[in-house]
Amino acid sequence: MPPTLEWVELEDGPALRLLDQTRLPNETTFVDCTTLEQVAEAIKVLRVRGAPAIGCAAAYGLALVAARSSAPDVGALRSELAAAREVLGATRPTAVNLFWALERMMAVASQSGLASAAELVRALVEEAHAITADDLTRCRAIGRHGAELIRPGWSILTHCNAGALATAGYGTALGVIRAAHEAGKGIHVWVDETRPLLQGARLTAWELVQEGIPATLICDDMAGYVMQQGQVNCAVVGADRIAANGDTANKIGTYTVASLCHQHEIPFYVAAPYSTVDFSLASGDDIPIEERNVEEVRLLGHFAARPVTPQGVGIYNPAFDVTPARLIAGIITERGVAGPPFGHSLRRLAPE
Amino acid sequence: MPPTLEWVELEDGPALRLLDQTRLPNETTFVDCTTLEQVAEAIKVLRVRGAPAIGCAAAYGLALVAARSSAPDVGALRSELAAAREVLGATRPTAVNLFWALERMMAVASQSGLASAAELVRALVEEAHAITADDLTRCRAIGRHGAELIRPGWSILTHCNAGALATAGYGTALGVIRAAHEAGKGIHVWVDETRPLLQGARLTAWELVQEGIPATLICDDMAGYVMQQGQVNCAVVGADRIAANGDTANKIGTYTVASLCHQHEIPFYVAAPYSTVDFSLASGDDIPIEERNVEEVRLLGHFAARPVTPQGVGIYNPAFDVTPARLIAGIITERGVAGPPFGHSLRRLAPE
Repeated sequence: MPPTLEWVELEDGPALRLLDQTRLPNETTFVDCTTLEQVAEAIKVLRVRGAPAIGCAAAYGLALVAARSSAPDVGALRSELAAAREVLGATRPTAVNLFWALERMMAVASQSGLASAAELVRALVEEAHAITADDLTRCRAIGRHGAELIRPGWSILTHCNAGALATAGYGTALGVIRAAHEAGKGIHVWVDETRPLLQGARLTAWELVQEGIPATLICDDMAGYVMQQGQVNCAVVGADRIAANGDTANKIGTYTVASLCHQHEIPFYVAAPYSTVDFSLASGDDIPIEERNVEEVRLLGHFAARPVTPQGVGIYNPAFDVTPARLIAGIITERGVAGPPFGHSLRRLAPE
Repeated sequence: MPPTLEWVELEDGPALRLLDQTRLPNETTFVDCTTLEQVAEAIKVLRVRGAPAIGCAAAYGLALVAARSSAPDVGALRSELAAAREVLGATRPTAVNLFWALERMMAVASQSGLASAAELVRALVEEAHAITADDLTRCRAIGRHGAELIRPGWSILTHCNAGALATAGYGTALGVIRAAHEAGKGIHVWVDETRPLLQGARLTAWELVQEGIPATLICDDMAGYVMQQGQVNCAVVGADRIAANGDTANKIGTYTVASLCHQHEIPFYVAAPYSTVDFSLASGDDIPIEERNVEEVRLLGHFAARPVTPQGVGIYNPAFDVTPARLIAGIITERGVAGPPFGHSLRRLAPE
């Protein structure tokens, strides 16, 4: 698989190279972002998406601003970075990793030891590299922990894409699936197509085909049927933000999957880096839910040449939903698996 | 609204004129079927769809075969009709109305009193007209009975299209919605887009806009979210076949909606003509489920110019599912509303 995102040196300076996920699976194309605006646009229109990958892209976005800045001194550069932080922070409201990564970068920017602009640039690029390398390491650990929950021969349902494309590589939910497959467990994956933007049909299916992991795509409204037929052993999804009590915001439709799992007594797991837990929020009620352009619905994720809906009908397009902790069997992090009650178990996994 | 189907006289003889539902909502076009093969094709590719409308179309299909036959005598015509009945009966396996209408027509065909081919043709055309007129009458009665269940200001969720387009007119689930709207109840409708063929986004939304009934379209995976937000007061759907115990086959995704309603303590209603009840089946386990071409999934209901899925991924495309009776609050028929336990209540509504 090509890298989701990569720091490259072009003739005129550095760039953030992104695998353009809006063109998958039909075209494998890359965009080289050299400006803050290009990075922000790429996040907004989902050329790069998935909570951990957005965090990495935003970190590189700040590194890029610094590396291409003409600020005369450290103070001016810090002002420029503060402004850039606002632009990147306004791209997508729900995923916490974006803000977490921006904070890590801004903490480096405000270090008093960095006297010259050049030193600051170097430190920021290194921090973005570290955030990205750490993410890959964490995904592999999530995979190891999660695979222990998967029994041989299981069929696993997933929604949206929490794969290599949503992270620096390997994936969270798909990290669990990859690790179970690599361990020779003989698994099969049910892939929800995930309307409106079809990340399941386009991205998860693409990753699984490349890995040779047996997978069957279904429309979202078929999930209940395959569960009713006894064909699903567990569900694993990613997360955009997890409240202190375990309530989990993730791609719209996740709550529907979790409800169906509950009804069918199928374990429902969330897989995410520990940085996805936002201890500042007591419950999921406080997680902001992004609403996106209704054209995503009307134009079938922009794959229809013209609207499939009649003029004049109202359309609602929330991008996320919140699954209450009571529907979640376990939250799989790089530090281990937290079980209910999550208010206790999530804190217990914190670094000392 | 233009008629869903209509018997017309062309220069060279009669035809079944169908509003081509595969072209809605972008184009209002009609196809004139003059042969058995055209009628069968129209049913298979869903130019005409919806259990009651399929029944009417199949009845007119037999009338058309008779009216355009060159059979020399009644015996030869009856043989031709028997062969045509097989062709039409093989178009779609799940909806019972198709078989019910064909039986009604074949009963007329076998009447001993009809001595000439011309008399038989006339009787068959009249029977097809009667089936269609009866369907409209039944839909209006379903609407009246169902509207009594709807309280002022309710938001009603529906899946697929059980509207005028799925019947001879007025609709079953949408008949209930139309009647509640006409009664001034100030309702609002949540429309599931209904993948893979988008009958909700294309057809139900189109009907509701034409009627001026407030409606909001959502993707199927958003249904759980709007229920969780307390924004759905009840769900009403149509049916393709109802077993004697109340188990109901309907468009794929209906079971997912019913499960979500159950979880949220939202009443889930089925609206269908009484002829949809198949007393020969003890339960829904015996209802055959049609599987359709996976290109419907890959090409987004044929609205995408090219597949949105990678080569090599498996795809599953069941066209229906069965909602167990325990999830159903009531079955609304033209004879009244049956409540649980349905084994008793459905029989009680039978004509004496």
